[in-house]
Amino acid sequence: MLNKPIQVLMIATLHNDRLLRALRRQPVDVTPVWLMRQAGRYLPEYRATRTRAGSFMRLCQTPELACEVTLQPLARFPLDAAILFSDILTVPDAMGLGLSFSDGEGPQFARPVRSVADIERLPIPDPETELRYVMDAVRLIRQELNGRIPLIGFAGSPWTLATYMVEGGSSKDYARIKGLLYDQPAMLHQLLEVVTESVIAYLNAQSAAGAQVLMVFDTWGGILTPRAYREFSLAYLARIVASVNRQVEGQSIPVILFTKGGGAWLEDIAATGCDAVGVDWTMDLSEARRRVGDRVALQGNLDPAALYAAPERIGELAAQTLADFGSGAGHIFNLGHGVQPSVEPDRVRALVDAVHELSKPYHANPVDAG
Amino acid sequence: MLNKPIQVLMIATLHNDRLLRALRRQPVDVTPVWLMRQAGRYLPEYRATRTRAGSFMRLCQTPELACEVTLQPLARFPLDAAILFSDILTVPDAMGLGLSFSDGEGPQFARPVRSVADIERLPIPDPETELRYVMDAVRLIRQELNGRIPLIGFAGSPWTLATYMVEGGSSKDYARIKGLLYDQPAMLHQLLEVVTESVIAYLNAQSAAGAQVLMVFDTWGGILTPRAYREFSLAYLARIVASVNRQVEGQSIPVILFTKGGGAWLEDIAATGCDAVGVDWTMDLSEARRRVGDRVALQGNLDPAALYAAPERIGELAAQTLADFGSGAGHIFNLGHGVQPSVEPDRVRALVDAVHELSKPYHANPVDAG
Repeated sequence: MLNKPIQVLMIATLHNDRLLRALRRQPVDVTPVWLMRQAGRYLPEYRATRTRAGSFMRLCQTPELACEVTLQPLARFPLDAAILFSDILTVPDAMGLGLSFSDGEGPQFARPVRSVADIERLPIPDPETELRYVMDAVRLIRQELNGRIPLIGFAGSPWTLATYMVEGGSSKDYARIKGLLYDQPAMLHQLLEVVTESVIAYLNAQSAAGAQVLMVFDTWGGILTPRAYREFSLAYLARIVASVNRQVEGQSIPVILFTKGGGAWLEDIAATGCDAVGVDWTMDLSEARRRVGDRVALQGNLDPAALYAAPERIGELAAQTLADFGSGAGHIFNLGHGVQPSVEPDRVRALVDAVHELSKPYHANPVDAG
Repeated sequence: MLNKPIQVLMIATLHNDRLLRALRRQPVDVTPVWLMRQAGRYLPEYRATRTRAGSFMRLCQTPELACEVTLQPLARFPLDAAILFSDILTVPDAMGLGLSFSDGEGPQFARPVRSVADIERLPIPDPETELRYVMDAVRLIRQELNGRIPLIGFAGSPWTLATYMVEGGSSKDYARIKGLLYDQPAMLHQLLEVVTESVIAYLNAQSAAGAQVLMVFDTWGGILTPRAYREFSLAYLARIVASVNRQVEGQSIPVILFTKGGGAWLEDIAATGCDAVGVDWTMDLSEARRRVGDRVALQGNLDPAALYAAPERIGELAAQTLADFGSGAGHIFNLGHGVQPSVEPDRVRALVDAVHELSKPYHANPVDAG
């Protein structure tokens, strides 16, 4: 096969493949750890780059700066994965909605989706054109990582993106999107269709550009009823899992799904065919593992607020999460949500070191325990 | 017994006892319905009274005005219960923290709890002195209701109150209270002890003043890990259930517990000995009922955002919630959280009417189905 030499090269040059092994539920020496928003405001060097960029959008849209902040936490902590620095709302921005971020106010769309005509007007962006800056960032980061650790690419879930697209930004009560959901479900499905196609193209472009793992963030799936979750979020997550390229240049591309507040639907998420399910801190990993068995790997799930504790206490809390998962393969340590801006960087160091140190006994017998 | 004549009088004068019957899981003609925040900003007459009061605190602290807004939704809709108009933060205010509400900013405490000394200084307020305005409102409302429907009194859960007391107001990341929880759990327990004693005294005073049902709102229990929920919220909810007077003047006082986002812990909440468990919209009532059987009544759980739908659609959604619970006694219809300020009052009418009309078939055979 034509791709064989590239595959060999890539595997040969990935010095730390703990994440990929854990995603395949293969034995590892220690539990791999990375953190949602590991590149972010809690790091002074991030804040400096953000200031230099002038705006959050400019930071996302300048590949050199996006690469720089992606690498910042890796220079400090022995993390087992990099995650592309970007924002889930770049996709609706590329669909023509006009994204901006005002300080303290969060994201704003200049042209939110309010009618069928608005939906019919939405293009499926060509990622290598309208989102070229993201793909260039992916290529640059892969080059800079030089095979040390894998790079995770990501997108927002169609439901989560649609929420922002319809509300026009963040929302407290989700009046517009829920009104649509309950009153005009066909119109909402029409929107979710085009967003899903855009997300699939976007994720495929990321893996083609070099992302070795793909993660879908369903930040707002947890605000739905069980029925609405299945119909308006899970169905589209499942379509993404079924549709994205799972082999790129001979390498398999694992997919991680994360619905915040989705603990009740863990089995359904696992049944999509994804490789791993992200779990927030409102469920013990022991219960999560009991429920999904060895069908998928599990990613999580320390309370992000645990990073407000003293460093030695953080070690104890990490130990508890490791014990909850127990022995065997298939655990990727993470927080249950992103690192908060007010966390001290030394707490993140304490956590990463504790996970590597304290997880050794769970991998002493390298068997793929179920 | 001395209280016998009063008991007879009270029962005789309660014209609509659906709520009390449903709480006891006794047969009813139709499913009783009331709504969290049924008295509130979505009603123009509430906004007028609020303006007249000058401030939200003045509204809470003036028994005549609190009574007036309590009764407003009852004049519009055939609701099966009244709920005292007040705020959960009146208790920490009476403990000396200095509560104020700034428009758009939410609650603020002038003297948040930050040290052991702060905790040691906290009194257990005498409800008939420091919270006399609440008790006067309860007495006035009972008088005005004149036995038409029962009056629900309420308090915030100790964990939820402690969250505001330590953060000093609303919070996005709960950095201070979670820091305390993870770093200084003994100090947090010390705070929860005094808050729990204050809440018990407050609830007992409400039932003595005439509240016929008591509800505890654990608004922030759902931000905890399962371990932390059991230790820092559920344990104190259980203490309240075990400690409040359950018989007042010969009448039993049912207790409803509601942890928003607490679906995963339903069995544990039911096991406290409460009479009913509130369920938010992220779980189907069919599953909730399967899990708690006939141990408790269930209160809920329509998505509050369903009230953004057209009136006829609201009927369909109410029908679904009724069908989820199914036949038999023990269901109190409610939203999964409060009525949102931007809801049109006619939607609330559509809901209340639909519940009464569409629930009849579920009570056609008045047996206490489990």
